[in-house]
Amino acid sequence: MEEALLASGSELVTVALKRVNVADAGDDILRHLAHPQFQLLPNTSGVRTAKEAVFAAQLAREALETNWLKLEIHPDPKYLLPDPIETLKAAEELVRLGFVVLPYIHADPVLCKRLEEVGVAAVMPLGAPIGSNKGLLTREFLEIIIAQSKVPVVVDAGIGAPSHAAAALEMGAAAVLVNTAIAVAGNPVAMGTAFKMAVEAGRMAYEARLAGPVLHREAVASSPLTAFLDR
Amino acid sequence: MEEALLASGSELVTVALKRVNVADAGDDILRHLAHPQFQLLPNTSGVRTAKEAVFAAQLAREALETNWLKLEIHPDPKYLLPDPIETLKAAEELVRLGFVVLPYIHADPVLCKRLEEVGVAAVMPLGAPIGSNKGLLTREFLEIIIAQSKVPVVVDAGIGAPSHAAAALEMGAAAVLVNTAIAVAGNPVAMGTAFKMAVEAGRMAYEARLAGPVLHREAVASSPLTAFLDR
Amino acid sequence: MEEALLASGSELVTVALKRVNVADAGDDILRHLAHPQFQLLPNTSGVRTAKEAVFAAQLAREALETNWLKLEIHPDPKYLLPDPIETLKAAEELVRLGFVVLPYIHADPVLCKRLEEVGVAAVMPLGAPIGSNKGLLTREFLEIIIAQSKVPVVVDAGIGAPSHAAAALEMGAAAVLVNTAIAVAGNPVAMGTAFKMAVEAGRMAYEARLAGPVLHREAVASSPLTAFLDR
Amino acid sequence: MEEALLASGSELVTVALKRVNVADAGDDILRHLAHPQFQLLPNTSGVRTAKEAVFAAQLAREALETNWLKLEIHPDPKYLLPDPIETLKAAEELVRLGFVVLPYIHADPVLCKRLEEVGVAAVMPLGAPIGSNKGLLTREFLEIIIAQSKVPVVVDAGIGAPSHAAAALEMGAAAVLVNTAIAVAGNPVAMGTAFKMAVEAGRMAYEARLAGPVLHREAVASSPLTAFLDR
Repeated sequence: MEEALLASGSELVTVALKRVNVADAGDDILRHLAHPQFQLLPNTSGVRTAKEAVFAAQLAREALETNWLKLEIHPDPKYLLPDPIETLKAAEELVRLGFVVLPYIHADPVLCKRLEEVGVAAVMPLGAPIGSNKGLLTREFLEIIIAQSKVPVVVDAGIGAPSHAAAALEMGAAAVLVNTAIAVAGNPVAMGTAFKMAVEAGRMAYEARLAGPVLHREAVASSPLTAFLDR
Repeated sequence: MEEALLASGSELVTVALKRVNVADAGDDILRHLAHPQFQLLPNTSGVRTAKEAVFAAQLAREALETNWLKLEIHPDPKYLLPDPIETLKAAEELVRLGFVVLPYIHADPVLCKRLEEVGVAAVMPLGAPIGSNKGLLTREFLEIIIAQSKVPVVVDAGIGAPSHAAAALEMGAAAVLVNTAIAVAGNPVAMGTAFKMAVEAGRMAYEARLAGPVLHREAVASSPLTAFLDR
Repeated sequence: MEEALLASGSELVTVALKRVNVADAGDDILRHLAHPQFQLLPNTSGVRTAKEAVFAAQLAREALETNWLKLEIHPDPKYLLPDPIETLKAAEELVRLGFVVLPYIHADPVLCKRLEEVGVAAVMPLGAPIGSNKGLLTREFLEIIIAQSKVPVVVDAGIGAPSHAAAALEMGAAAVLVNTAIAVAGNPVAMGTAFKMAVEAGRMAYEARLAGPVLHREAVASSPLTAFLDR
Repeated sequence: MEEALLASGSELVTVALKRVNVADAGDDILRHLAHPQFQLLPNTSGVRTAKEAVFAAQLAREALETNWLKLEIHPDPKYLLPDPIETLKAAEELVRLGFVVLPYIHADPVLCKRLEEVGVAAVMPLGAPIGSNKGLLTREFLEIIIAQSKVPVVVDAGIGAPSHAAAALEMGAAAVLVNTAIAVAGNPVAMGTAFKMAVEAGRMAYEARLAGPVLHREAVASSPLTAFLDR
């Protein structure tokens, strides 16, 4: 796993608190994850209310010695979809307590703005249900979120292929969060590398078009090659 | 332009015969394109029948000293969509004449098999109308073509972003042909690089999943992370 | 307009409070809308907070003599997307005050459940941004909402064609809310009729498949006609 | 089955020649299908070449006393996708022999024009693979076909729900061909009725917008309701 993480070039790795035995110094996952390349990002997966989330966050801060937090509140065990009300409530309290909060939420542009207003460090809207690998089903709303946001937008959940990750970055997302697609690949290390390249490609494409026509607009293209030669 | 081509890592560069002044040794486009990294692939863009295509191909072979040929026959000047009947007829004749034929066609699985049977070197089905940048609109049919084909499948037309190129490779396409998306980018060199990385990412993802579950299938994934740790 | 409404077979017609001059008995819109076929459904379009919504709702109840209310809270004037936090807060208060509350919301399954728990009469998730006519972009989430909901699900916003309305009903939605598509049609009365038929067709298809295979599943269909003849 | 056909309001019913025992006057399918409401449209399903198709067509003309013919040539038994080359060849011959030819083809705009030029009565491009119920996957190309065609365009294959049929008619298709979706429904008679209403709704919507803005264009919609009231 460590090898796949390194291959992916990840800078943040999220770890479920429930999976970590905080009392056990030799905990296996933590040992795997403690690495200078990436920073641990504890998450609150499994909590169902703002109150539980704040409690879990405080435990995590002590155990992992980081005030970064991926805030996840999903009362529904079937689809693991996030609760907008509890998430905003918890985010407000956690920011007040000095946490760097990255909330996982539905691709809801109004909620994203409200989270930004209470001081989260980034917003993490979903592309599709967790584990579905269906990609950017919420594309239309992600575009609005990215256009409006003053904090980085990280697309979380649903990213099932490097092409999905590239598409998110091409739209202007700051990053993506990937788990299932790498974890279940035949060769997770190669898949991690593929995601790394796709993310870089997507970012480069986003930047490369800034001075030119919008990439996704239908091209008139009477003679694009000629235009190209004229440069 | 040369710089963008090098950045993209292209191995084949197609050039419209109509744009090349074959009598002029100092022709500007050819000078740009003559480079050890990539092979020239003359195309028959502009012809409307099999007969015209065969004639143009023979001219190209003499002028450019290559028997590789991208066969394009599109009678319709508006959408530049290929003609299946004339393309098959020309392909049959050109293979007989010793050409290495790469035909541009609709994403029609039966036509692809027929072209394979007459001996083309690869098939080049379209993803979307030329210049539209709409990506893999024909995905459903490309999947059938790739599953059935014994020759390489190169997705031509419609590829408007690195994420589209990555998606084509993830499906098992051997390559993509890109023009407009790079030609009209604000920074064509950077965009060429982005496409190169996306193609490599897509190919790597295609290979990385061979031993594992199909990437696009809806994940059951009760606990993918655990499965991952077990490796 | 009255004719188009009758043609559509609508049973509820929503009217923006801001457009109604409640002091003016001869208000033009109300005269158009007072009709035995459909019930008026005042909406709170234009309010930005729960507090404003509750105030507007009380005004509407007095003016229009109905306690039915379409609850719309959208602080953002550009996309008119709904605010999940204020909507839940207002819904809770309005239910307490005896209103029959139909909230307009993002296609957020968790929010829908929370609104159901505070006692709304139906939920009205959006299909696409208002006025976009893009149809059921949120299809994946609407399916989850419909599967989980104990109150009727009315798809609001984005319905741009009768086929979109039919698709919503085929999925199990109880109804759709349509405005722009009919309002801007060349012939609004005919378009209203077309929507009516499409809604009926969608509902009938939803019911017709109950005893059979799921309509959208990929058919195995070795010989569907034979199976049909065997009935 | 007869009841479902009547409910659907179909005017043409296609029947596979292979299923009909032409020597047996009491053939069961024919007895079911002989009805004043709809005309029989024999099809050549099962043939693999133009020659076989012409032979089958002549048999059908004698047996069923009609010169109408749905021309289907699909050499591939797995996906039943049509062969463009053999279909054009057979169409040319059959038109010469006095048949009213309706060819089933890929959604290939150039092929459609060529078939129109040899005199077919209509073109029948596919929406998606037969039996897949996936709807209008070829939408982009169907739009081009409809815009260019001088003969009616009938969308064949892939229509899996009334909403798909409505969408085809909204785009300007003249009709749809439906089998699996009705044949495998829990209640085929109700499903037939649903398709009938959806087709009528789609056609009505197509006509209703002729004088107004294009239905699918993104609405500017500063105030559609006001525009509506002004009529």
